[in-house]
Formats: sequence, structure tokens, C-alpha cells
Amino acid sequence: MTNAAVKAYLDANADRFDAELYELLRIPSVSTDPKHAADTRRTAEWVAERARKAGVPEVTLIETPLHPVVFGRWETSKEKPTLLIYGHYDVQPVDPLELWESDPFEPTERDGRIYARGSADMKMNLLGILQGIEALSAVKGELPINITLLLEGEEEIGSPNLPQVVADYAAELTSDVILSGDGGMMGVGKPALTIGLKGLVGCQVNLTTSSTDLHSGSYGAAVPNAVRAIAQLAASFHNPDGSVAVEGFYDDVRPLTDEERADIAAVAESGNDTQFMEEAGVSAIIGEAGYTVQELRWTRPTIDFNGIWGGFTGEGNKTVTPAKAHLKITSRLVPNQRPDSVLALIEKHIETHTPAGATVEVVPGKGSANPFLLSKDAPGMAEAVAVLTEVVGESPGLIRSGGTVPITDVFTEILGIGPVTVGFGLPGSRAHAPNEWIRPEEVAISRLAYAEYFDTLGG
Amino acid sequence: MTNAAVKAYLDANADRFDAELYELLRIPSVSTDPKHAADTRRTAEWVAERARKAGVPEVTLIETPLHPVVFGRWETSKEKPTLLIYGHYDVQPVDPLELWESDPFEPTERDGRIYARGSADMKMNLLGILQGIEALSAVKGELPINITLLLEGEEEIGSPNLPQVVADYAAELTSDVILSGDGGMMGVGKPALTIGLKGLVGCQVNLTTSSTDLHSGSYGAAVPNAVRAIAQLAASFHNPDGSVAVEGFYDDVRPLTDEERADIAAVAESGNDTQFMEEAGVSAIIGEAGYTVQELRWTRPTIDFNGIWGGFTGEGNKTVTPAKAHLKITSRLVPNQRPDSVLALIEKHIETHTPAGATVEVVPGKGSANPFLLSKDAPGMAEAVAVLTEVVGESPGLIRSGGTVPITDVFTEILGIGPVTVGFGLPGSRAHAPNEWIRPEEVAISRLAYAEYFDTLGG
Repeated sequence: MTNAAVKAYLDANADRFDAELYELLRIPSVSTDPKHAADTRRTAEWVAERARKAGVPEVTLIETPLHPVVFGRWETSKEKPTLLIYGHYDVQPVDPLELWESDPFEPTERDGRIYARGSADMKMNLLGILQGIEALSAVKGELPINITLLLEGEEEIGSPNLPQVVADYAAELTSDVILSGDGGMMGVGKPALTIGLKGLVGCQVNLTTSSTDLHSGSYGAAVPNAVRAIAQLAASFHNPDGSVAVEGFYDDVRPLTDEERADIAAVAESGNDTQFMEEAGVSAIIGEAGYTVQELRWTRPTIDFNGIWGGFTGEGNKTVTPAKAHLKITSRLVPNQRPDSVLALIEKHIETHTPAGATVEVVPGKGSANPFLLSKDAPGMAEAVAVLTEVVGESPGLIRSGGTVPITDVFTEILGIGPVTVGFGLPGSRAHAPNEWIRPEEVAISRLAYAEYFDTLGG
Repeated sequence: MTNAAVKAYLDANADRFDAELYELLRIPSVSTDPKHAADTRRTAEWVAERARKAGVPEVTLIETPLHPVVFGRWETSKEKPTLLIYGHYDVQPVDPLELWESDPFEPTERDGRIYARGSADMKMNLLGILQGIEALSAVKGELPINITLLLEGEEEIGSPNLPQVVADYAAELTSDVILSGDGGMMGVGKPALTIGLKGLVGCQVNLTTSSTDLHSGSYGAAVPNAVRAIAQLAASFHNPDGSVAVEGFYDDVRPLTDEERADIAAVAESGNDTQFMEEAGVSAIIGEAGYTVQELRWTRPTIDFNGIWGGFTGEGNKTVTPAKAHLKITSRLVPNQRPDSVLALIEKHIETHTPAGATVEVVPGKGSANPFLLSKDAPGMAEAVAVLTEVVGESPGLIRSGGTVPITDVFTEILGIGPVTVGFGLPGSRAHAPNEWIRPEEVAISRLAYAEYFDTLGG
């Protein structure tokens, strides 16, 4: 490794690199807000220009119906491995603005932190990647790998256009390793690699019991009630032991191995149960029997109710027998479940558990995703473990998330490999909340770690 | 009876009486609408003046915080029985106005009907009572009974101020018989007497499982879900056979006698089950096993869910684990249940059936009412049966209603007797809907029947 030389380069250029970070943080690339559309494009142009300055010879903007994707290629040799780097240059909205203690788009240092929207998610990482490319190529005279950049501007609104871009450019995106910079650390001095994500599928149940709401006095004693029916249907989805009662739901679930359980136990994201309950603001742990909280959160599939409504929901009384009620359901999937087959099981369950007198319409949700699990020996994993251990000083925790990152699945499906996710924001950095922050320490680590990772992948 | 003479008087004055009806129907006494407050008062004054013209010597307006009560007394002799007459001069709002085929406040004859807001509910009856008083006293030279009038202007908004008026004037309202004009017929040529009403009590359940909504991916597998919990709680309220599962709920319910079941079967409001389902717009009858539809509607107590809501209820997906969910419950009561004790049973049920991890707050509803059941030999009943049979030509059906008329309970509680309810609007007369109507035939019947009833009560 060329640790010392890269470090020296980064030290020598620290002021310029820091100034660049502040410049990037000042552009309000709020992708969801039409009045920031020009700012978002300006950010794409700024990032493209910065990539060129880092030495990437071929940088273009791929237009989409909304915000452009920064696409870059630096092919140094057909013999070298190719790394596809994914990231995003857009940021979350800032509201409620009144809760910010300083201007979200004027980076402000307080108590050892730098406060700015998009700092942790993920402008620090994005710029760290480009600065790392510059540092490594400057120190070595050339890059030891080929690099493809795919930096989108719509991650915070669900990456609606990226799947099409990935499909259209699949040939150009072919790579040996994929790096995603959209990750974080487990704590100060504790790096992490996200190896697992849950999949997702959902639907809305629209239930009807009568052609109109009825007078509960005149009719209630003899007719079906949509609220009662939706409650009975919803209550049928879980067994008393907390498991999902949908027939066949667990058929495709790959049981946890002893090694996986040990790996999960070693990464104590949840702390003890009391700490977890306090953090979540709940008074009980409700989940499948026989699993730790961490196992539940990372590895067990669920049926979640996201919303319910029906009948009169205003102030006071209205003595109606409701005609219609609605339930929003999502299911978090784990290996080897698939969205379509789980949705079919849910539909079958609804069909067989709809109370007498009710008819239901099931409307599938718009997005779905397969579960994701990166094996420890996936391309780029060993190098990431080695570099993070060396640069941060502790081996990375192999973490999973109960959340879903659809683009992960898109890469896996279209390009055939999953991304190695390396990022440096700390827990509690308020990525989607007011007063988002990073620390100068992790800013420095990010530049060095990405440079070292590129170097290590080059062999 | 003095049928022929009263009839002759009514015939002789028919044009004047009809003109009065149109005049009354033209005043838009919409009690719920502040911009009709002056109209509503004008209606009270019109009614008071009409009562004076009918011969009632003492007529005043009792002021309330909203609309005045027309109070009248015609004491003809301390030896004679006293009849308290209840009615209301206010009407329902007219919206949606665009569905009216003619001006709601310009009575319009079409196809043998007179269309006007408030015609069936209950200006026809109200004026019929006053014209009946005039006709009877004119024919007989004096009234054979003492009469007290209590005509309110807030029935269509739930009679918020009448209980206080009844309590304040209890001594003046003491009577041998109470007549309510706020009723209707079972069909053309088929009179009715409403002898039973259900009582009512209700509450709102506010259920909480966490301090805020949680990310369903990060937390959903290990924490309680408010929507799941409210569904489980709601589903616990009924047994598979359709009966209410709240412990002790039926303890105070007086079983139906064979005579009552026969009386109910004789009054086929529901028609056959297929007709009932069609009218209600439902595909199944859902109620307690062992009872006919008519028995369910008129005599069985219920737990009804009027509304439910929790979590994300907008368009699309939001993968939250909801922190809060709500359920609106009302219970229709039958003899001899009481609101307070049923509410206590519901609260106890909620306490013992709230799922682990959830806390609940139960907020009692604002209005409650005892069930009402008038015995066949209650004061004024035999006379009403006799008069309706004679005037209309068929003996009245003894009907009940699953609905609740709180003022009925107020009379029973404060004055010690329940009202005999006699009215002449037909089923389908759209009392609370656009294009409300009456027919000239029932207008004529109402005047005669009320006059005959007063005469018959006089002995």
C-alpha cells in the first residue's frame, strides 16, 4: 500500500480539499423541490467538473426526465480490474427549517462538527471518492484500476430514473467490483460494511361492505361493517406467537446459519433490549419468538401495516356503519423470498380471510425489491475489510439493514454483482433531519480510505 | 267521535289551511346554518302566531342559547287530561342543492307530490296539529283536553338545549299523555306507532405503541405496530357467531317475549331478507345468530365501529410502523341496558384485550341515551291505535327503530312518561335528502287524525 504517500498528498492539499467540500455543501441540491431544479443541475455540473479535475478523462451528463446522472470513465488498461462507483449528489429537503441552528447550506463548525444538509448523506463520501482518485493517481502517476462513475441526482426521491439508465448503459457499466459510497460507520473508530438489505413488496386493500355508509341504528345490527371486516382481516395476518400467519410465507426463507448468528451477535447495533426499546420509544419487543432483536431487525421477514382508515374519522361522533375501509400492507423480504411470490401469498391469504359480506380489491404497490445479501467473499469485500481495518484501526462490522435500497437490487439484477457499500457518516448524524453533521476526522478518513481501496483493488 | 263535523270544518277551510302550509314551508328554518338564524326565529314566531290563531291563549318563546322553543298552554279545565305536544319547526340543510329538482323552499307540486324541504320532517305534522286544534275547538266550542305545546327549533342538530328547557319547565310540562309529531307512516294507508328506540353510548379509543412513527424496515420486525394492535383489539369485540364478545354485555338485556316476536313479525319493515339486502346495498346479513333481520334491527344491542384510522393514509406508499391508531365505537342499547354500565364493560374489555406493547386512552363520547320502549298500555296508546285505525283505515304497526332520539329519553327521565309518536310522512319521503316530499292525501289525514286524537283523549 501507498498509505504514507497518499496521506502526505492529502495533508498537503487539505485546505483546498476542505474548501471544495464547503463549496459543494453550499449548493442546495434538493432533488424533490422543483425550485431547486437549477441548483441540482448545477451540482451535477460541479461534480462532473471535479471528476475531470481528478483526472477522469471522459465525464458526461446522462439526461433523465428529471435530474442528470454524472457518468464518467477512466479506462487505464484493459488488463486492470474495473470498479463501478455509485453515489448520489442530491440531498434531502431541509424542512422544518426553523429547527436548524445554522443555515443548512452554509457549512458551520460547532463543537467539532460541521453542520450542513447533505454532509453525511453523502457529499462527504462523494467528494472523498473524487479527491481519493486525484490523490492516488497523483501519487502513483496513474490509477491502478479502471473506474466508471455513476453519480445520480435522484436518490433521495427513490431513484425513479436510475434503473432505466443502468439498463440502457449496462454494457458500459460492466465491472469487476461495484462500490457504493452511500453508507456509514457504526461509530467513532468503528467502520462498517453493509452486506444485507431486506426486500420489499406491498399492496393496498380496499374493502367494501355496502354501497353507501349506513345508519348504524337502523342497519348496524344486521349488516356487515367495513371497519369490523378490515380489522378482522388485518388481525388474521399474525399468529399469537408473533409469526406471520400467511400460508407458505416462510417456505422460501433460508434459515440463518450458526455462523450468521454469530456474526450478527458480534455487531451489537441494537445494544441490549432495554436500550433498543428506549431508542425506539416502545414498551415491548414484539416479534417472532426465538430470535434476538438484532436477528429480527436484520434477517426476519415481516408483514407490516403502514396505514388503515375507514368510516368517520373527524371530531366527535357520526353513527355510521362504514361501507369502505382500507389497509396499506408492506412485507419486508429476506433471502430467498421474491416479491411476486410473496404478493401472491398475501393475495391468497386475503381471499381466504375476507369476512363474509365484504369484497376486497388488492392494489399492488408501485415499488418492489428483492432482498440483498452480499457474501463475505463477494468481489471487493476482502479488500474493503483490509483497507477499513488498516485506515480506521478496527475491522468493519458486517452489518445488515431491515431497510430496502432498490438500486442495490438493480445492480444485482442487471449487472450480476452487488455493491460493496463503504461510507463514513456516523450514527446520529441526522442524515434526514435538521442539523445534519459530519466531523473533520471522518472527512480525512474518507479521502484516505477510498484512495487506499482503489489502490488495493489494483493489487 | 265527531269525525264528520271535524271533516266538514277541514274541508271548508282546506284552501286556507293549504295556503298556511305553503307559507310555513317557504321559511328556510335551517337550524344548523347561522345565515338562516333569522329565518329560524321567524319560523318560531310564525308558529307561535298560528298557535294563537288556533285558540291557544298563552303562547311564548322560551329563549335558548340558539333557537327559541315555542311554548304554549291551553288549560281548559283542571278536570280534563293534559296532553303535552312535542314537535320541531326546524329543518335539515338542503345541500347538495344541485340535486333538487325545484327550489327547496318553494313548495312545488309534481306527480301528486308536494316537494319542499321540511315537508315530511315535520312541518306537515306540526301544522296539522295546530290546524287540528283549531278545527276541534271550533266544532266543539271548546277543547276537551288541556294542551301544552313544546315546539323546538334545534331537533335537526340534536336538540342540544331542549333537555335544559324540559328540566327548567318540568312543573309546567307535567302531563297525562305526551304526543310527539316527529314520526311517520309505514306506507300508504298503513299508519304506525313508534314504540321502541335503541339507546346509545360511545367512545373513542386512542392507541399508542411508540413515541413516533418508526421506519418499518429498521424497526418493524421487532416493535409493536399501532395499526396491527388496533385491528387485533377491534377484532376481539365480536364472536364468530356474530354476538358481542364483551363480557357481561348481554347481562341486562331483557329477552324478547313470544308476544313481542309475534308483534315484530307482523310488521314487515324489512320485507324478506333479499329485499332488505338490496335496500341496504349489502351482500350478506351479518348479525347475531337466532334472530330475524327485523328482530336484529329493532331489538338487539350492538357494538358498532364507526371509524378507524392510523399511520399513513395518503396516496402511494410510506413504509412506516405507525405509532398511533384510533377507533370510534358506539353501542346501541336495548332494554334494560344502561349507557354507563355498558361503557364500563367496554372499557374493561379494552383494558383486558389491548395487545402487548400498546397503551390506550378511552375517551367517552359526548351524547348517550337510554333505550326506550313504550308498553302497549302506556297513556295515550289505546286512543292512538283507535284513531289511526279509524282515520287511516288500518290498525297502526307497532314499530321500533334501531335509531336513537335523545329527547324521548329526556321526557321519560324528567317527566316520567314516554311520548306516543304519531306522524304522517311516507317511507321514502327523503326527509334528510334532496327532493323531500309529502302528498296532499297525508296532509288531509294529519289534520283529521290529530283532531280526532285530541277528541278521543278527552273521552
